[in-house]
Amino acid sequence: MLTQLCKSARKASVLLGNSSTDLRNTALQAMANALVEKQGEIIAANNIDIENAKANGISTAMLDRLTLTEARIEAIAKSVEKVIALPDPLAKSESWVRPNGIKITKKRVPFGVIAIIYEARPNVTADAAALCLKSGNAVVLRGGKEAINSNIAMAKVLGEAVETVGLPKECVQIVTDTSRETANQLMKMKGYVDLLIPRGGKSLIRSVVDNATVPVIETGAGNCHVYFDKYADEDMAVSVLNNSKCSRPSVCNATESLLVHKDIAEKLLPKVKESLANVEIRGCERVCKIIDAALATDEDFYTEYNDYILAVKVVDSLEEAIDHINTHGTGHSECIITGCDIAAEQFCNTIDAAAVYVNASTRFTDGEEFGFGAEIGISTQKMHARGPMGLTEMTTYKYVVTGDGQVR
Amino acid sequence: MLTQLCKSARKASVLLGNSSTDLRNTALQAMANALVEKQGEIIAANNIDIENAKANGISTAMLDRLTLTEARIEAIAKSVEKVIALPDPLAKSESWVRPNGIKITKKRVPFGVIAIIYEARPNVTADAAALCLKSGNAVVLRGGKEAINSNIAMAKVLGEAVETVGLPKECVQIVTDTSRETANQLMKMKGYVDLLIPRGGKSLIRSVVDNATVPVIETGAGNCHVYFDKYADEDMAVSVLNNSKCSRPSVCNATESLLVHKDIAEKLLPKVKESLANVEIRGCERVCKIIDAALATDEDFYTEYNDYILAVKVVDSLEEAIDHINTHGTGHSECIITGCDIAAEQFCNTIDAAAVYVNASTRFTDGEEFGFGAEIGISTQKMHARGPMGLTEMTTYKYVVTGDGQVR
Repeated sequence: MLTQLCKSARKASVLLGNSSTDLRNTALQAMANALVEKQGEIIAANNIDIENAKANGISTAMLDRLTLTEARIEAIAKSVEKVIALPDPLAKSESWVRPNGIKITKKRVPFGVIAIIYEARPNVTADAAALCLKSGNAVVLRGGKEAINSNIAMAKVLGEAVETVGLPKECVQIVTDTSRETANQLMKMKGYVDLLIPRGGKSLIRSVVDNATVPVIETGAGNCHVYFDKYADEDMAVSVLNNSKCSRPSVCNATESLLVHKDIAEKLLPKVKESLANVEIRGCERVCKIIDAALATDEDFYTEYNDYILAVKVVDSLEEAIDHINTHGTGHSECIITGCDIAAEQFCNTIDAAAVYVNASTRFTDGEEFGFGAEIGISTQKMHARGPMGLTEMTTYKYVVTGDGQVR
Repeated sequence: MLTQLCKSARKASVLLGNSSTDLRNTALQAMANALVEKQGEIIAANNIDIENAKANGISTAMLDRLTLTEARIEAIAKSVEKVIALPDPLAKSESWVRPNGIKITKKRVPFGVIAIIYEARPNVTADAAALCLKSGNAVVLRGGKEAINSNIAMAKVLGEAVETVGLPKECVQIVTDTSRETANQLMKMKGYVDLLIPRGGKSLIRSVVDNATVPVIETGAGNCHVYFDKYADEDMAVSVLNNSKCSRPSVCNATESLLVHKDIAEKLLPKVKESLANVEIRGCERVCKIIDAALATDEDFYTEYNDYILAVKVVDSLEEAIDHINTHGTGHSECIITGCDIAAEQFCNTIDAAAVYVNASTRFTDGEEFGFGAEIGISTQKMHARGPMGLTEMTTYKYVVTGDGQVR
């Protein structure tokens, strides 16, 4: 069943991968239009999910994330439309001729079939389908059970829209069985799935990394730090920290830990406490001597709270800060606040992370903010893609070599 | 023990990764010089390996691959020297400024620590160390037990040479324990090893893919095909096939299977038989009716012989050829011989492989032949790197974002 679904995705991916930019953009427009035209179907399905969720006593926040309204579906359609305007990642290629006359072209090509395993929010269904379609990849979507009816309805609408422009509807596939067994099976579809992108919490990512035999891009684990260097501008420090921590604590680019140089700790920590009044502070012993805070455990410094909680530590030196971050961080986004160029350079050169910030909020690690137009996720691994993954990162390449009988 | 070794490699990698192009090139020159100056030490160690190999009744071919002579060590030193002239892959970076004033620099950086697990030939020790050093990566080498004394001697000479220019000798590390347990432990050094590249036969690659939890680049599995299209130039077809199969059958870019369009099979197969007189032909039933050949099993078409054996099949159409290759191939190098542009285009667009050839030998899939100067291996996966992996493919990137207090 799952094998059959992946096989038909693979078959569709060959046609999709060789289709023109125009045809793929026409398909995206059809997808956006269909979402709006058939929102009745989608909302009806969403209502079933909402009823089930209420019966299961889901939290208000989760219920809100699950709910689709006319306005939300229109916003989803708009974000599909925005993908049309992005440059075609498959248009890039470079060629060279070798002394023996063979011509080598390095050609951007889609991966083929991309599988995405994600959690509650049904908007991911349309966003992921749009980015995969634009980059020439067939997509196999496996969303969470909470949104299964919404996801099935939306994927059906999207697949049918793709078909109206002459591409196979199997370009957009949805796994209707939300059991863990089927998810595990999907992770092992070697030969059918070319790339698997998990989008969700730590336990989902962990399970995928442990079980997958298909290539995976790890996304979203963000234990991000802000370090106040001894030469930090005080107002800037507090303002950037406040934004990094509080503007949206539930996302992966939010800051979880603050490190403060000992020389400025006494002056700055009370200001931090004041600015982050609604944040629970868990500090090391030195922090607790300066401000009123709970004592942090070592575990705190490894934790991605995704909440109004901040771990704080006083460090003796820039080197200690770097060492702490490289030990406790997840390679996502790390920030130094400093007026000293040498400290900034040392920080940028030795911190091992996708994005390293000097005097700017970690919250900028985002495809839109980086100017990529959209993203399928934030990679925290070093292979293939790092940081915000745009359309180019959803492609690979092949070499096409043409000759007139050359031998070696 | 292995953890300690990987830890010191990581520590060394930070200094190496931030060293100048000049310093890394000076280190390479010192490495090349040291290999020649201390060849006595290396040859003495190699003699122990040779004695052990003889006692174990190793084949003559294997013994030859294992043997180091003055001339061979000089050739190894020359290939280290050649890496000096290659462009520094870390020199590439691009920057842009966003409307809010933050400057984003996408900076090429080393992976950090690259582990290489390889089989018999001791020249890999120096080649891999040179490419890793040039690309700013510390290397953890784990060669086969047959060459362990040679490898230890060479790694010692190389590490000491690196130290003479002021870089840590731990940039070049060798695993002295050649047990399978230690190899398996190396594959799971998450947090210490950033990339693992296996270089060797099918069973080594398989074992790495199945066991590794660190990121891996699969290399070297090459079940390559040549397809004679109905519009093939006959002489070119036979000449390219002969070169693809016979010029060096033991390497991964050698061809293992020939597919022939039914319309030209009767004319071309006798010529193939004549040209490849020293090759054992295993054909499908239709082949066996035309020329004298053993009957091929389905297994034959999945086999990478690395020997003077060729599986041959008659196909009814280009589509059948493409389907056969995408089913049986390993995504390495695939070739069509045709005078028809439409057939060539269809072949190139739908074959899923690192390198697709039109009228040229599969033997060109090689870093030198592609113009990359050197390669660490031929990737047969789609993530990160595909085909010959040069210095650029041994690096990743990070984003360095600088601002003056921007928040979101």
